[in-house]
Amino acid sequence: MIYTLTCNPSIDYFLNVHDLNKGELNRAETVTLQPGGKGVNISRVMKRFGQDSVALGFTGGFTGEWITAFLNKEDIKTDFVQIDYDSRINVKLVGKEETEINAAGPRISNNNISKLIQTMERFIEGDLLVVAGSIHKGMQLSRIFQICKEKRIKLVVDAEAELLKQALFFQPYLIKPNQQELEDFFECSFSNMNDAIPYCRKLVNMGAKNVIFSMGSSGALYANKNALYKAYVPKGEVVHTIGAGDSMVAAFLTKIQLGYSRLAAFRFSVAAGSAAAYSEELCNKQSAFDLIGQVTVTKVEEDVN
Amino acid sequence: MIYTLTCNPSIDYFLNVHDLNKGELNRAETVTLQPGGKGVNISRVMKRFGQDSVALGFTGGFTGEWITAFLNKEDIKTDFVQIDYDSRINVKLVGKEETEINAAGPRISNNNISKLIQTMERFIEGDLLVVAGSIHKGMQLSRIFQICKEKRIKLVVDAEAELLKQALFFQPYLIKPNQQELEDFFECSFSNMNDAIPYCRKLVNMGAKNVIFSMGSSGALYANKNALYKAYVPKGEVVHTIGAGDSMVAAFLTKIQLGYSRLAAFRFSVAAGSAAAYSEELCNKQSAFDLIGQVTVTKVEEDVN
Repeated sequence: MIYTLTCNPSIDYFLNVHDLNKGELNRAETVTLQPGGKGVNISRVMKRFGQDSVALGFTGGFTGEWITAFLNKEDIKTDFVQIDYDSRINVKLVGKEETEINAAGPRISNNNISKLIQTMERFIEGDLLVVAGSIHKGMQLSRIFQICKEKRIKLVVDAEAELLKQALFFQPYLIKPNQQELEDFFECSFSNMNDAIPYCRKLVNMGAKNVIFSMGSSGALYANKNALYKAYVPKGEVVHTIGAGDSMVAAFLTKIQLGYSRLAAFRFSVAAGSAAAYSEELCNKQSAFDLIGQVTVTKVEEDVN
Repeated sequence: MIYTLTCNPSIDYFLNVHDLNKGELNRAETVTLQPGGKGVNISRVMKRFGQDSVALGFTGGFTGEWITAFLNKEDIKTDFVQIDYDSRINVKLVGKEETEINAAGPRISNNNISKLIQTMERFIEGDLLVVAGSIHKGMQLSRIFQICKEKRIKLVVDAEAELLKQALFFQPYLIKPNQQELEDFFECSFSNMNDAIPYCRKLVNMGAKNVIFSMGSSGALYANKNALYKAYVPKGEVVHTIGAGDSMVAAFLTKIQLGYSRLAAFRFSVAAGSAAAYSEELCNKQSAFDLIGQVTVTKVEEDVN
C-alpha cells in the first residue's frame, strides 16, 4: 500500500474577490472549500489515476472531520490521528491578484506523534510512504525513516531542504525538490535548468534512488544512478501552480506501481504537473493524457569536465 | 420566550495579519472562530445578561453544525431549519487595517421557509421575536409579521430600511435603526444627533412603540409616544464596532423582561453598546455594568416649531 503523510492537512477556503480593497468590507462572488496539504493532494491525484493510497497525518475538530469525509467521499482511505484542536483553514483570495493567508497548524502533542508511529509499525515490506509538505518540529523523523529502512518501505520525500538532508541518509526511493528547495539544500542559486543538473546528480550520489526536479515552465529533470534526463514541458497558460508538484509525484508513483519504466513515469509526471498548472484544479487522468504527447524527454550526457 | 431570527448565520473567521500583502502568501499569527449574525449575537449577549432565548434561522452542513454546537455550549437554545448547503464562513482580517470578506449566504428554498413559518406557528402570546440582519428575498415577511400580530407576539426589528418600512405597519415593539438605516428610510442625511430627533419621532408616529437610534460616539436617542431621550455615551477607545448595536438590543430587551422601566433599559443598552465597541468581543455583564455610571440620559423637550 502507498501511504501519504501530511502533518497539517487544511481546509483551503477559496474566495473569488475580483479586486480586494484593504480596510474595507469586500463581498466574495463565489466560494469553494477544498482539502489542502501536499500529501492529501498526492492521494487525491493518485486516486484519479486509479491508484489507491491511505492518507496519514493529524486532523482534529469539525474541520478535521470535514477533510476526512471529503477524502472518504472520493474513495480515499484515511487513517488520521485525531487531535484535540481544529484542523486549520487557509484563506485563498482569487481575483486580479492571488492573496493567500495561511494559518499556523494546530498543536500536535508527543502522544499524537506516538500514535502515528504506532500506525507506521504496521507497515509491511513493499509498502511506500510519501512524506510531503511541512513537518511538525517534534516529529521524530529519524524514527520514521528508521522504520522505513527496517521494514524495507520505499520512502518518498517531497519537502523542504532540511528534511531532504535528513532523508538522504536513508536512501529514499524518490525525492522531488523544486528550485527553492534545491537552492536551499546546496546554498547556491541558479537561473536555468542546466545549472541544476550537477546538483541533481549530487543528490543521487548522496543516496537518492530517483530525483525529479521541477522548474515550472523551464522544464524538469530526472536523475538516477544510471542517467539524467531533461523534459521540455507542454506550452500553456499557467492558471495556478498549487498542486502541480504534488501531481507530478502522484503521476510518477502511479506509473511505477503499474510497472512502467521510470522514464515513462517521469514523462507522465511532467504531463500531470503541467495539466495541474494549466487548470484551476489538481490534474485528472484526462488532462494529463491530453498533454503527454507534447512532453519531450532527452538524455543529458555526462558533463565533459 | 424570546426568539431571535438570523436568516444567514455565519462562522466569522478572524485572522490576525499585522500587515496584509496583496498578491502574496501571508501568515496569520493567531486565528479564532466565532458564530456570526445579528440575531445570533443578540441571543449570545442576552445569555450573558441571564436572559434565555431561542435562536431561529437556517443553518446547514458542517459549518451549520459548528454554529449550533457553539451556541448550545453557551447554553443557548437553537431551533434552526436544516438546509442542504453549508452555512457561510466570513473572513475578518484584523491588523493595521480591518479587511472583511463576506461570502454570500447559501440557497434557502421555499420549503425551508415553510418550515420556519411552521416553527413560528407554535409561538404563544407574550413571546417576543427579534428579526435582525439581512433577510432572504423569499422570506414571506408579511406572513411572519401577520403571525406576530395575530398571536400578540412582540416584534423587534433591527434591520435595513426596507424591512423597517414593512414592519412599521405591524406596530413593532422596538426598532433600532443606525444612521445609515435612518437616512435610507427617510432619504435624507444628517451630521449630528439633533438632526435625527424629528425622524425618530416620526417613526413612533408611524407605529413603532419604542425606537432606539444609535450614532456611535455621538450618542443615542430613545423615543416612545410620550417622550424622547438623548444619551451621551461613555468615553473610550473604539476597538471594533461589530456587535455593538446587537449588544444594545440585547441589553434593552433583558431589562424590559426583568421589569425595569424603558428608560432604565435604554440607559443599560447604551452602556452595553459602548462596552462592545470598546472591547474585542461582544459585551458581557460586567463590562456593561462598569460603564453604566457614565451614561447620562436627558429628556429632549418638544421642538418649538
